[in-house]
Amino acid sequence: MVEEDVLFNLLGNETRRLILKMLASGPCYTTEIADRLNVGQKAINEHMRLLQEAGLVDLFTQKQSRGSPRKYFRINKSVRLEFFVGPYRFDTSLANLIETDMPEVLALYPHLQDLDVEVRKTERIKEISQLAVLYASLEDEHEKVVHAKEYIEFKMDEVRTRCIDICDEIGLGQDEKRVVIEIVSAGGTVSDKELSTRLNVPEEEVSASLRSLEKKGLLKVR
Amino acid sequence: MVEEDVLFNLLGNETRRLILKMLASGPCYTTEIADRLNVGQKAINEHMRLLQEAGLVDLFTQKQSRGSPRKYFRINKSVRLEFFVGPYRFDTSLANLIETDMPEVLALYPHLQDLDVEVRKTERIKEISQLAVLYASLEDEHEKVVHAKEYIEFKMDEVRTRCIDICDEIGLGQDEKRVVIEIVSAGGTVSDKELSTRLNVPEEEVSASLRSLEKKGLLKVR
Repeated sequence: MVEEDVLFNLLGNETRRLILKMLASGPCYTTEIADRLNVGQKAINEHMRLLQEAGLVDLFTQKQSRGSPRKYFRINKSVRLEFFVGPYRFDTSLANLIETDMPEVLALYPHLQDLDVEVRKTERIKEISQLAVLYASLEDEHEKVVHAKEYIEFKMDEVRTRCIDICDEIGLGQDEKRVVIEIVSAGGTVSDKELSTRLNVPEEEVSASLRSLEKKGLLKVR
Repeated sequence: MVEEDVLFNLLGNETRRLILKMLASGPCYTTEIADRLNVGQKAINEHMRLLQEAGLVDLFTQKQSRGSPRKYFRINKSVRLEFFVGPYRFDTSLANLIETDMPEVLALYPHLQDLDVEVRKTERIKEISQLAVLYASLEDEHEKVVHAKEYIEFKMDEVRTRCIDICDEIGLGQDEKRVVIEIVSAGGTVSDKELSTRLNVPEEEVSASLRSLEKKGLLKVR
């Protein structure tokens, strides 16, 4: 399990991004990385240490046709990190990818069934060109679903924006507005404590905003 | 338009992530940020400069009920950054979000039509609790589509892995293997030049691998 903050810190460095890109095309050894990226071995060693510590990369030894065995680095996890920022939005999500529950997805999106069947057949495929064709259709489907996702995200932003407009129409203060948006984003119900954590604001301040919003008849405190 | 490398570098710093998180709950002024995050004003100023330079944040002046007007920072773009790394995968994508082409998405996913209608109605909604309910259904739909996306990504990984297995069965070298995976990922057809850029390898090396793969009857050079 790779941690989100650690991953952001790792990706904040261009050389490390280049190293990961290189490893994504196959295992590499230190001098190979240092030569290709034109960076000193000592610096590469330090980057590799951090990538290993994060659990993203590991080492293995491989015999060489000539000379002594060599140590190779490889990426050993599938990780997806998503970051979303907007005027009233800050979301991050990190997924350590393992196979997603299939029957559920196929029930919701039955048209994916055909692709699933095709992918199952690949075990018997010996031709790389066939794989390329299948990959291209998966990419098509991926693009569609990404659009649908963006579309829904856009709608979510519209609802948030409408919420801010209402707050402005009523003339709420900044603190109250923040609390209202956070409650809406949480789907309508959320505790003082959660609000305080999500907003990174002391619980007393949150409680004060909640009391004032209740007085204005905007929400119910339970 | 925010640049991908710039955004990765910005997000590599924890304080900057916290600043963005704070601004996502509403505009803030420098002392407010410095106090809440317990970081010196000078350091905050430097972070704000970088965030502004990247085009992610801007400044505006707001009158105060008492005292002189104050300068506030706010997030002025909606940006989504995605990062994907795996044993044979390194993908990043940055979207500067604007409204996605709706008719296309709704034609592909007709069940989203109802939500679309509901969101359109929000202009007339005056009640925050109603918005919260709608937001929750959008989140439900979002979760589903994210699962579908992950599912397809998983299938794409399966095809890549199958491709690597075939390369290993044939006994291809590391360089040849990289070229093959890149060709498959590109959907089957790609130029020497593109391969050289994608793999960050000199064109001569790519051409050598291509010639050797052609000799083995694995691909056609056109």
